[in-house]
Amino acid sequence: MSSSEPQEPSAPSSEPPSSDQSISKKAAKKEAMKQEKLRRRQETALASAASKLAVDEDDPLAGNYGDIPMEELQSKTPVDPSRWTRVENLEKSLEGKHVMIRGRAQAIRPVGKKMAFLVVRESGFTVQCLVQAQQDLVSVQMVKYAAALSRESVIDVEGLVSVPSEPIKGATQQVEVQVRKLYCVSRALPTLPINLEDAARSEAEIEKALQAGEQLVRVNQDTRLNFRVLDLRTPANQGIFSIQSQVENAFRQFLLSEGFRQIHTPKLIAGSSEGGAAVFRLDYKGHPACLAQSPQLHKQMAICADFGRVFEIGPVFRAEDSFTHRHLCEFTGLDVEMEIKKHYFEVMDIVDRLFVSIFDSLNQNCKKDLEAVAHQYPFEPLKYLRQTLRLTYEEGVQMLKDAGVEIEPFGDLNTEAERKLGQLVLEKYGTEFYILYRYPLAVRPFYTMPCYDNPQYSNSFDVFIRGEEIISGAQRVHNAEMLEKRAESCGIDVKTISTYIDSFRYGAPTHGGFGVGLERVVMLFCGLNNIRKASLYPRDPLRIAP
Amino acid sequence: MSSSEPQEPSAPSSEPPSSDQSISKKAAKKEAMKQEKLRRRQETALASAASKLAVDEDDPLAGNYGDIPMEELQSKTPVDPSRWTRVENLEKSLEGKHVMIRGRAQAIRPVGKKMAFLVVRESGFTVQCLVQAQQDLVSVQMVKYAAALSRESVIDVEGLVSVPSEPIKGATQQVEVQVRKLYCVSRALPTLPINLEDAARSEAEIEKALQAGEQLVRVNQDTRLNFRVLDLRTPANQGIFSIQSQVENAFRQFLLSEGFRQIHTPKLIAGSSEGGAAVFRLDYKGHPACLAQSPQLHKQMAICADFGRVFEIGPVFRAEDSFTHRHLCEFTGLDVEMEIKKHYFEVMDIVDRLFVSIFDSLNQNCKKDLEAVAHQYPFEPLKYLRQTLRLTYEEGVQMLKDAGVEIEPFGDLNTEAERKLGQLVLEKYGTEFYILYRYPLAVRPFYTMPCYDNPQYSNSFDVFIRGEEIISGAQRVHNAEMLEKRAESCGIDVKTISTYIDSFRYGAPTHGGFGVGLERVVMLFCGLNNIRKASLYPRDPLRIAP
Repeated sequence: MSSSEPQEPSAPSSEPPSSDQSISKKAAKKEAMKQEKLRRRQETALASAASKLAVDEDDPLAGNYGDIPMEELQSKTPVDPSRWTRVENLEKSLEGKHVMIRGRAQAIRPVGKKMAFLVVRESGFTVQCLVQAQQDLVSVQMVKYAAALSRESVIDVEGLVSVPSEPIKGATQQVEVQVRKLYCVSRALPTLPINLEDAARSEAEIEKALQAGEQLVRVNQDTRLNFRVLDLRTPANQGIFSIQSQVENAFRQFLLSEGFRQIHTPKLIAGSSEGGAAVFRLDYKGHPACLAQSPQLHKQMAICADFGRVFEIGPVFRAEDSFTHRHLCEFTGLDVEMEIKKHYFEVMDIVDRLFVSIFDSLNQNCKKDLEAVAHQYPFEPLKYLRQTLRLTYEEGVQMLKDAGVEIEPFGDLNTEAERKLGQLVLEKYGTEFYILYRYPLAVRPFYTMPCYDNPQYSNSFDVFIRGEEIISGAQRVHNAEMLEKRAESCGIDVKTISTYIDSFRYGAPTHGGFGVGLERVVMLFCGLNNIRKASLYPRDPLRIAP
Repeated sequence: MSSSEPQEPSAPSSEPPSSDQSISKKAAKKEAMKQEKLRRRQETALASAASKLAVDEDDPLAGNYGDIPMEELQSKTPVDPSRWTRVENLEKSLEGKHVMIRGRAQAIRPVGKKMAFLVVRESGFTVQCLVQAQQDLVSVQMVKYAAALSRESVIDVEGLVSVPSEPIKGATQQVEVQVRKLYCVSRALPTLPINLEDAARSEAEIEKALQAGEQLVRVNQDTRLNFRVLDLRTPANQGIFSIQSQVENAFRQFLLSEGFRQIHTPKLIAGSSEGGAAVFRLDYKGHPACLAQSPQLHKQMAICADFGRVFEIGPVFRAEDSFTHRHLCEFTGLDVEMEIKKHYFEVMDIVDRLFVSIFDSLNQNCKKDLEAVAHQYPFEPLKYLRQTLRLTYEEGVQMLKDAGVEIEPFGDLNTEAERKLGQLVLEKYGTEFYILYRYPLAVRPFYTMPCYDNPQYSNSFDVFIRGEEIISGAQRVHNAEMLEKRAESCGIDVKTISTYIDSFRYGAPTHGGFGVGLERVVMLFCGLNNIRKASLYPRDPLRIAP
């Protein structure tokens, strides 16, 4: 994706990288003001550039280039969209053919006054286009027009496909387009707040340049998010969100094939949801309400309503002040709930096969996307077994103890202990994906079924990828009286969840389920260092924009 | 789904049907108190019943029946779940085989002291089971236990499959199970707030009985929703939500096959979203925020971020006080946005093919579900053309005018006019699904692209099913300056949407899209009279529970 043109560092993105915790409101405001200033400057520049770019009316070839008039862009003329060739389809077999493409002017490199190279990008594929002055075909004014285009502008290019004798380094496609016509659909500001080349650069490239004495721009995480629309155009980000779409698709296809039905439960909840995590509160037509912190209660109610096996993909909301690399205030929950006949291992069996099928599908269907991510953010492919390893919580605690890490036997694992256990498991069993089950009851929510033989433990499990928790699941209490007692002993006002508890009085199947964060799956499969990279427009305690 | 046992009407659901508007808070509170009273009474009854049901310890066959002890239900013994035969798989080929099934005791009919019939339901399929006292096999105490089970309890039945000489009327499966063992997993309250037979009854059945002098219970819409977990168990409701799952699946599969990517945009939005519809407001870590009334702004920003073609399936929130049969405060939005080359007809082409493929897929894959719905709520199959009819707004207005209905030429159609036009279109063109395009600009949101030839019109469209609007779509303004002006002229504070508007300054493709309500698709395809029937747990201005 790199072009050979010289690259000026862009001003606002050149701060050193900062940790998430350091983003103060003041800094954000300062940044916003700086951007506003920059924008005004850019607009002035654009206006003056535009006048310079006006098509030379004395040019007899003036009809072959220029900005497409607004009224033409307002659906004036219907045209068969298949007349455009996609950049990814520009192959050597098209040599000599006339094509029309639409894409972004990723790079513009004038060579004297009679020639300009353009690199045009569409959906992550790029092609080199040559605008060269030629009698009766291409005027010098047209070359000037091409050279003056701003990068990232959307353009239509018409021309002949040629195959150069030498390989093309600056583009994905190995053909060149000899430009005959060139029109601009939408101009980008001449100076962008982030340069795509800067945003697409890996840490390794920056380090390497530094050793050679060159200081390259590093775009920090927060600047990326401030200008997310530009940041998302990098190959790594395009890859990340194709992978996300595929995770979701594989998740759904597997579950549909296993007889699960997709449901949608309400996000607007009376009272205070299921207790525990902090919730966002709001007024609902005069009633106190909150945003669902998970579809937990309603997906269980669907099981009570004879749905048998259900899943939901939807937003979940957490108002917690967690300033970590892996917490968001809003993320996409993948939730599953199912009847079980006898044992919560039936749920773990689904988790096992489901995730092996998701990982397989990513490795098979997302090769290019994974490469694009790894190019900027290098990672090793995830190690996982055909049948997922299962350890009891006690076994996990013992492994940690043997390695010198003491854990409260009925407490939870902290992040550090999870990491350490991940390492130990990898060394001993050769997998970065495993299930830890039979957790202490005290660290699980009230609706978790206690173990039959020891009520200090529960029929629950967590699942880990690369030493980080990714899935939480359990058998649920299906008996209304027991559920009521459990809720009370967890300090929950049972009146606020009475419709939920009542659901179990009309005959309730034994059941269990689990929940997964979509962004975490993507982050950990790709070994990304921050969940914000796996969220399209992340929301955290300090960010509610863009 | 009907059993032959006599049916007592259930007290709390016997009110006459009421319109949605009549649900007052006072009535809801009264209802809740009544329910609480009922529940307490039921619990006492249950406790005394349970003692009566205690297994007779003198019975040498006591091990063959009884309530499964709690510890056994707490995942004590793992058992291969495939040992259970699904009710839908109980066929004549299994004659003489020993099977184990799990389901609900839908009907219990004792015949003397030595025999009891059970109808067991699983996933909408039912089978008749016979518990008959037999020396050394089935004790009279076991028959008594069976007869005393409460309806809707979850039970395990083991027995031999037999094929009766006469067809079985009260069950879907044409075999009978000669019960050898009978265990209860979860008891339902002896008196349920809604009887399933009442809830599953059609208006026609009620009318027919009335003419024969019999007053059957009619469960009104609000009572259904109060006890949604029971209401959802009816065949019609099971069908409705299978259809909903299929609509979503067909929507997704079509779009994925056309190169669309699934995205997730935030529901927590700074400021006040896109203006227009009333929003739910909340405090986000000290900042004013609201719930997204649609993914409009963020899906357009994804297009600016080179996503090309995107769709989203997720909740959208409307705080409007709309007390109609077709408005909800929270529903599932199916949203699409895409680059266009030249004309917004490219978007309409997708709408056309997408919906024809959804309708085809429902008719092909959901036959049983559609029948189940039609059995309780009769409707005619939707009439639609292979290529969807397109009319301009002006043509629509003219058709109405010719029929004597006057419409403001630059206003919107009201519900009545939409209905009327639907009738006229059906008569003239034989379709209940059509597109009306080129709407007056004044009735469309600020981001809608005006027509090139007349700025009083816009490049927009609505789509109708059975005379009701179901889809709204348009070309969007992709030019930042024009967008800013349009927002200002619509009275929107552009500062609150500056990141959105700025997205168009970095080069913006021409694009368009549309939004659909999932529940409306289901409601109108099935000709249901109320959108609440197509929402799992509906939210309206008066309802935020269960």
